Parts: sequence; structure tokens; C-alpha cells
Amino acid sequence: MIFPLGYRYASTYAGIRKVKKDDLALIVSDVPANAAATFTTNQVQAAPVRLAKHHLQKSGGKLRAILVNAGNANCATRTGDAVALATCKAAAEALDAPVDQILPASTGVIGVELDPKKITRALPGLVRKLSPKSFRKVAQAILTTDTRLKISSAEVAVRGGSVRIAGMTKGAGMIHPRMATTLAFVMTDAIISPVFLHPMLATATEFSFNRLTVDGDTSTNDILSLMANGVSGLSLDASSRPTFQEALHRVLQDLAAQIAKDGEGAQKRITIQVSGARTHADAARIARAIANSPLVKTAIAGSDPNWGRILCAAGNAEVPFDPSTVDISLQGVPVCRSGLAAKFSEASLKKMLDRKECLIDFRFHGKGNGAARFWTCDFTYDYIRINASYRT
Amino acid sequence: MIFPLGYRYASTYAGIRKVKKDDLALIVSDVPANAAATFTTNQVQAAPVRLAKHHLQKSGGKLRAILVNAGNANCATRTGDAVALATCKAAAEALDAPVDQILPASTGVIGVELDPKKITRALPGLVRKLSPKSFRKVAQAILTTDTRLKISSAEVAVRGGSVRIAGMTKGAGMIHPRMATTLAFVMTDAIISPVFLHPMLATATEFSFNRLTVDGDTSTNDILSLMANGVSGLSLDASSRPTFQEALHRVLQDLAAQIAKDGEGAQKRITIQVSGARTHADAARIARAIANSPLVKTAIAGSDPNWGRILCAAGNAEVPFDPSTVDISLQGVPVCRSGLAAKFSEASLKKMLDRKECLIDFRFHGKGNGAARFWTCDFTYDYIRINASYRT
Repeated sequence: MIFPLGYRYASTYAGIRKVKKDDLALIVSDVPANAAATFTTNQVQAAPVRLAKHHLQKSGGKLRAILVNAGNANCATRTGDAVALATCKAAAEALDAPVDQILPASTGVIGVELDPKKITRALPGLVRKLSPKSFRKVAQAILTTDTRLKISSAEVAVRGGSVRIAGMTKGAGMIHPRMATTLAFVMTDAIISPVFLHPMLATATEFSFNRLTVDGDTSTNDILSLMANGVSGLSLDASSRPTFQEALHRVLQDLAAQIAKDGEGAQKRITIQVSGARTHADAARIARAIANSPLVKTAIAGSDPNWGRILCAAGNAEVPFDPSTVDISLQGVPVCRSGLAAKFSEASLKKMLDRKECLIDFRFHGKGNGAARFWTCDFTYDYIRINASYRT
Repeated sequence: MIFPLGYRYASTYAGIRKVKKDDLALIVSDVPANAAATFTTNQVQAAPVRLAKHHLQKSGGKLRAILVNAGNANCATRTGDAVALATCKAAAEALDAPVDQILPASTGVIGVELDPKKITRALPGLVRKLSPKSFRKVAQAILTTDTRLKISSAEVAVRGGSVRIAGMTKGAGMIHPRMATTLAFVMTDAIISPVFLHPMLATATEFSFNRLTVDGDTSTNDILSLMANGVSGLSLDASSRPTFQEALHRVLQDLAAQIAKDGEGAQKRITIQVSGARTHADAARIARAIANSPLVKTAIAGSDPNWGRILCAAGNAEVPFDPSTVDISLQGVPVCRSGLAAKFSEASLKKMLDRKECLIDFRFHGKGNGAARFWTCDFTYDYIRINASYRT
């Protein structure tokens, strides 16, 4: 891991979760950072999501800090707006920053009131603990049903030196690709003006978090933010901007792929590649339909090369196509050629599907250049176990 | 059960399934019946679906018989079209009927060639066995992963006497509401002209099979047909037509609800009622989003009154709404009022959710009259078990 300059991190246990595990965290930039963020598209938006949008707008896209808690989504709560504002105010005071430069984020159970005192009481201690070295601790504190830390970083050479990107994310369920998914915080020390920051984040999100599904549900609390504090003293010029964009893209894809691997109950990560479609949008629609099919995901869980279900799922994507132009491979082994069964050894392919990484390649022959890649995970007994007993 | 006049039924084991269980069946009307049918909207359509459409068109909506097999979907097969046609021809010869009055239907595994000789060899014996009493045997023969027979009937008083409706269906997985779902065959002995038959079927389907989901996948082989052979000698006049429509509606809803109850691995049937929406279409969209949410379905499996997931799923339906206008009840117990937690006894509601029938009532306060009802089932370990090992 490489860490961008000028950021400090801290986490603590504030008593929000039932189990004693850090549940409150701060990410602070030493100076106000330019920031862009994408938010859930769910009609039901948690109080912190609404306030975060408002703050970014009011501050003109400047952020000093992210205040995040796990264990309670502060969504569908009577006191939600007041709690989000009160805790941001307390953080702003403790950091001596304008309140609209604080981005609030919450994750956890919906519909349970969040006691703001738990957060305001913990804040002074949290601020004292801030350190450039606590990145991993914060990444740990934001996890809920996750089983693994999800972090990624990159270093990008620019004129005059190099800048750094580091990101963290959380999420294992209620994951579906519409705008941002789950919580993800990405920091860089490059100087990037808001004019470039927004499209950079939008593009990178489209090809990473928007291409990820665990269970087809988009949460009420999703936030993905990108902060650029410029502490490296280096700015991106026309030649280094594409390199930076690519690195950002890679970090976000890496984070999204880590979520797929840690999908609730998942034993396997599934990558779905679609190519030869008429447009990229068509390819993405087909990849999404395959990624969301419980029948495909249970077949992969059972290492069953049941390509008929893949073809059937693709046929439900509302993209017109001729089945006789479809080739499907699993783990690189052709299983369907021109819409018909290919000859393959079932026994040996079954063994290959026992691996932790599964690749579904869905290709149209034809002239189209539309391509898309999606990530998901298999559907196992454990998804049911985790979700039949999450709250209780 | 009440059976319409002028239909005979037969089933046999033709060696298509691996297990020795009837897998080939005939439904025959003594005289050519007026018929309407709806078909899968999947881009990938099985050979029998394509041929069935062609036959109905060519015969001007007349049907003598339905030839149906289980154990093989005859979809994505090299010889699919030829096999479907050859078996229809054999049935037509054996019944002395025009080939285009035979409706072919298949269900089972995708991508495996279907040997037509298994069917043509069995046909003469099958025709000899035809009997008005074998309705249940045919309903049994079309089942695949189903655990229960799914049949329903009604008697409708019309001027001069009464007419009868009887229907059968199959399906437990790959169930999603887009046009017809799975196979369903409905027979009546009323005289109904094609002008009325089509809209009657379309309306009844919209409020029954199109309101049903098990796993969000629409199969490649779905056919729902309605035959009216007129053998009762009674026709529907303006006053009895609404009564008949209502009875048809009831039979189809009953069949659809039986599928929800028998969803793969299901322990509970879930009925979702949405009301107070701006339009019926909005209500249906929200009901569908709730019905398709794995998080809602696993919560019900665990008897967890986790209404936050219901609100979250509704928020993903792409229907704009204000969460503060939403009331949710589970089993009649208010759990969410105006988008916020209502007070309820968790322990006693948990016990109520252990029942085999669960009701989710989602209501907007406001002036809208849009309402919809959907059926689905809970998501259990057994769904995973059944689908991780279906083919093997």
C-alpha cells in the first residue's frame, strides 16, 4: 500500500455496534481538499446521504473530513437529519473546520434511531488519535458483514514527481450497480481542479462500482467519494491526466472486485465478460443480467457448467440478439458455440469451476465492438444464513 | 375439481427424463377449439415456442391438441426445429388432425438434443390411453423440480346452464413475471370467439402469472394457452362474459399462487400488496422490486421483521416517492409508519412470520389509487441446494 500525503485517519469503538469492534472513524485532510462524490440512486436516501450532498454543494466541493459510522445506517429514523447535522457540527468544531466541509456517512441497520451522543462524546478522543498510519484501522472500522479488509492504492508518475491514490471500501450485501455502491473513500495528494475531478470519478465509477453486483439490491446509504488535497504540490497536466485516470480506474476496479470476492457467503468471484455486442451499453446490460441471475450464481456455486442458464439470463436483458451468434466459454473452455452445445469434458470443467475465480466469457460473432466486464460472486447456503439472521 | 366437456388427456414415460416418471403428455379437444396463448419474452426462444406461435397463426387460432414433454426443453439444440415439427406431425397423424392444430411445448434442461423417436414411438400408445379422467396424470407429467401438482378449476353460470374452466401449470424455478411464465394449459368448454378469447387471456395473465416471481429469471420455454372448444354448447353473452372473465382470472391466480407456494426450496408463500400509488403500473413496479429482493426473501425465510429491507427494495423500483408517506405492515402488524419504525413486539411478530403464508402490505398515504398484488416465496438453503445440483 502507498498512502497519499496530507491525510490522517482514526477509528474508535463508540458503542454503536452491539459487538465491541471499532464503529466510528474519521478521515481528515490537513488542508481543504477538492472533492467529488456519487450517491445512491435509491428513492429512500439516508439522512447522511442527504446532508453529504448538501454539504458538498454548499462548500463548493471542498472537504476537510469524512465522518463515518458503522452499525447504524441512520436511515428511516425520526431524528436522522438532526443527528447527522449534530455529529458533523461536533466534528467540525473538533477539527476547527467549516461544518459544510464534513462529509457524513453511515452504514448498518435501517430504521433504528442513532444516538448522537455516542458520536459526539467519542469525537475529541478520535481527533487526538488522528495519524497518517491509521488508514487500515479506518478501513476495518467501516466493515459490517464483510469478512475482509478492502483497500487499494496506486502511484502515478507526473511531471515533477509522483502523486498517490489510496482507497478503501466496504460492502458484502445490498450491492448492485447503480451509481455508487456501498461506501468507498478515495484519497489522492494530487492537485486536481473540480472541473476534472467530477468526470474522472464518474468515468472510473462507471467501469468499477457500477459493474458490480452481489444481490441486486442498491442500498440507501451508498457514498463513493474522491478527495484531492494537492499536498504533493504536483498537478496533473494534459499528458499525465490519462495516466492518473487509468490509475484511479484501477484502484476503483480493484476495490469493486474485492467486494465481489467478499460477497455475502461467496466462495467464488465471478467475472463476466461480454463482447461483440452492438454497443457498450448493450454489452453491459447483458453482463448485468447474467451477473444478477440467481440460477447462474447457484450453478457456479455447484461447479455446474450449466451454460443454458447463462444464455437464458442473457435473453432476459431486453437486448435483441440472435442466439445462433453466441459463443460462451467457462474458464476459457468453450461450452456453447453458435448458440449450441460445444463438446467439452464435463468432469474436467467441473474441477476447473471449483477454483475461487470463475470467468464467464459471452461473445457475439459479428461486427459489434460493444464490450463490458462485470463482477459478482456465487450464491451459496451462507448468503441465506447471513441474511436470514442479520438483524437478530 | 370440475372438468370441462370434450377434452381428453394422456401421459406416459417416453424415456426423456432420467428418472422413470411420466414425461410425455397429450391434451386433446374432441373438436377444434378456439385458442389463445402467450409466450416467453426471452430473446432465446425454444424451438417448440417458435413452432407453437407459427402453428397458432397458420391455423387461425384453432387447436386440436397440446403435445408436451418434460425433461428436455428442446432449446439451443441443433435439431430443435426439426424435432418439434416431426413430433407434431406424428401427433397430428395419430389424431387425424392438421399439423398446425398441434401446439408443442417442452420443459427441462437447455442445450441437450431431444431424440424425436422417443416421442414418435410413444405417440400411438399415448393416443390409445386418452381419457377425460387423466387430467391429473398430465398435470403430474409436466412437472420438473415441482413438488406439488398445480391445478385449478371453476364453473361459471351462463344463460342456459353452466360452462367449466380447468387449468394446470408447472414451475418452481426460472420464474419471473414477463408475459406467460412457465407452462400453463387452461381448457374451457364454453363457446368463445377469438375476438374475446385473446383479451380475456391477456387480462387474466396480467393479474396472475405476470405478478409472480420465484427467482427473477424468465425461462426460454414459457407458454400459457387457453382453449375454448365450445362442447358445452353454451356461449358467453354480454352479461355472462364478466363472470367468466372473473372465473378465469381466479383460476389463473390460483395456479400462479400455487407456483409461488412451490417455489424451489420455498417454505413460505409471500403475498405483496401495494396500494395508494400514483398508478397501477407504479404499484406493480414497487411490488415487483420487493418480490425480487433476495434480502427481503431471506429475511422472511428467517422470520425477521426487517422492514428496512422492504423500504430499501421499494426505493430501487425506479418509481419516485417520498419515504415519509409509506406505511408497512407484516402479517397485519404495522412495522413502519410514515417511513419510520412503528412500535411492535418483535418476539410475537417473529412467531407470526413462522407461518406458511406471509403478507407484506406496503401503503402510501395520499390520493393515489394505484394498487397491485404480487406473489413470491422465501429464499432458503434449499433453493441453493436444488440449483447448485440441478443438472448433475
